[in-house]
Amino acid sequence: MTVPDPRLSINQATIKHSDLATALRVTADAGVQAIGLWREPVQEVGLANAAKLLTDSGLRFTTHCRAGFFTMPEGPARRASIDDNRVAIEEAATLAAAGAEGSTAILVLVAGGLPEGSRDLLGARERVRDAIGELAPDAAAAGVTLAIEPLHPMYASDRCVVSTLGQALDIAADFDPAVVGATVDTFHIWWDPDVLAQIARAGREGRIATYQVCDWKTPLPADVLLSRHYPGDGVIDLATLTAAVEATGYGRDIEVEIFNEDIWADAAPDVVRRTAETFGQAVSPSLRAPLDSRV
Amino acid sequence: MTVPDPRLSINQATIKHSDLATALRVTADAGVQAIGLWREPVQEVGLANAAKLLTDSGLRFTTHCRAGFFTMPEGPARRASIDDNRVAIEEAATLAAAGAEGSTAILVLVAGGLPEGSRDLLGARERVRDAIGELAPDAAAAGVTLAIEPLHPMYASDRCVVSTLGQALDIAADFDPAVVGATVDTFHIWWDPDVLAQIARAGREGRIATYQVCDWKTPLPADVLLSRHYPGDGVIDLATLTAAVEATGYGRDIEVEIFNEDIWADAAPDVVRRTAETFGQAVSPSLRAPLDSRV
Repeated sequence: MTVPDPRLSINQATIKHSDLATALRVTADAGVQAIGLWREPVQEVGLANAAKLLTDSGLRFTTHCRAGFFTMPEGPARRASIDDNRVAIEEAATLAAAGAEGSTAILVLVAGGLPEGSRDLLGARERVRDAIGELAPDAAAAGVTLAIEPLHPMYASDRCVVSTLGQALDIAADFDPAVVGATVDTFHIWWDPDVLAQIARAGREGRIATYQVCDWKTPLPADVLLSRHYPGDGVIDLATLTAAVEATGYGRDIEVEIFNEDIWADAAPDVVRRTAETFGQAVSPSLRAPLDSRV
Repeated sequence: MTVPDPRLSINQATIKHSDLATALRVTADAGVQAIGLWREPVQEVGLANAAKLLTDSGLRFTTHCRAGFFTMPEGPARRASIDDNRVAIEEAATLAAAGAEGSTAILVLVAGGLPEGSRDLLGARERVRDAIGELAPDAAAAGVTLAIEPLHPMYASDRCVVSTLGQALDIAADFDPAVVGATVDTFHIWWDPDVLAQIARAGREGRIATYQVCDWKTPLPADVLLSRHYPGDGVIDLATLTAAVEATGYGRDIEVEIFNEDIWADAAPDVVRRTAETFGQAVSPSLRAPLDSRV
């Protein structure tokens, strides 16, 4: 069996149908050292239990997925979202403290789409900035980094009005880099003519909170949310993008996050093994330090 | 019956199942003054016949759709593509001469996707620039403007490696604006955080060869190519985008180009009527000159 790259982190969404205990066990059993968690399975067992399970697993905690969804105008729904984001910040802090040494308190933020019936994209984007402004003091107090995730423009209307890394960095620029950064996910930004310049900028500005990899191929499935593939199974130039991220000095864990019905239907241990293999082939060769010197 | 806006042009793809003679007749019968044609139905009747039919219709000719698809490396396939683009240039020139006064000789170019098995997006993009460099002298000699069309990033891998208006303008910048411009299509660029600045730039640089409108809404259909809607039926802020295009001084015809199975299944006269109505509601109010002063 291949030894997984020590910088590989399994994002829990990749093995979506596993509960938290199973996800942690399967990941650790495969020799993977880190995991990114999702809020729902954590809340299913309760935060305190989740933290204990995480500690017992010996895994590093890399990100908490995900909060955000705050494009709506002022009102009860917006207040509820901001409050829920505050809960998520606390969860991220607790889990980061419970993970093994080298864990990071990073909360991934997906902005949300256009409010129902609205065409005001500029307004929605301003409200993202406003929400992050409200949450930044809580994140700072909790030692959590908010990682704004630009999503592929095909999700701009219904899921995320932040569509490019440059746009995420423009929002983050108002805040301390320790408190607000960006999620750099290959699937969402590979197509961007400006991607290499924006990765370099993100590094220069200290904003790469987390680097996530998976692949893109067509035809897209009927539900375009589920169109993510194992690294190397598609057309993204992961070597160039990974080298660009590494060149900024980013040296932390790298998550693989895949939404794909076929992969979800496979047994979780097989999926983790295959993720480690494909990561080793498509990503590890582009990391600065060769695998064997880092094990 | 509403009098169609005099600047409305029906792109033939909107009534895809009509042959050329029918498309021309249905468009003219509805009181629409202009049409954009597609190569296949033109070639079906032969260019000379097509030109005669167009002249007889009394319609203005707005664009010829479409050529391009030249991302492959040097070799017979690339030569065949360049040759075919030269044929398309001649077609566009002939049709523009056959159309009513105010016709424009514009050839829409869709770059093409990544060659099979390739991840070299940068290389593919360079080959687009090279191909346009080869074709520009032919276009100039024929009096045709090549209109580079950025397509939505969801098509970046399999259809068009040019994904933003800014990128199209960067390519066009090497050439005379009379010879190489851009297609500004709301569906493809509405999400771009930089869209208003790039529309202004396109105007300043004399590069808006054609302005096309349709709408975006989700969920996307299983075939994402067919996800275009009548103006106003989705979430694109057509008022703001149209005003931005008008503010550059663009004053020519505006095409509605819709790929949508449901709309294609309707009778062509109904589709043209509905297109004129929705254009009148969602686009006309943003045009500089009020309708009645331009009739």
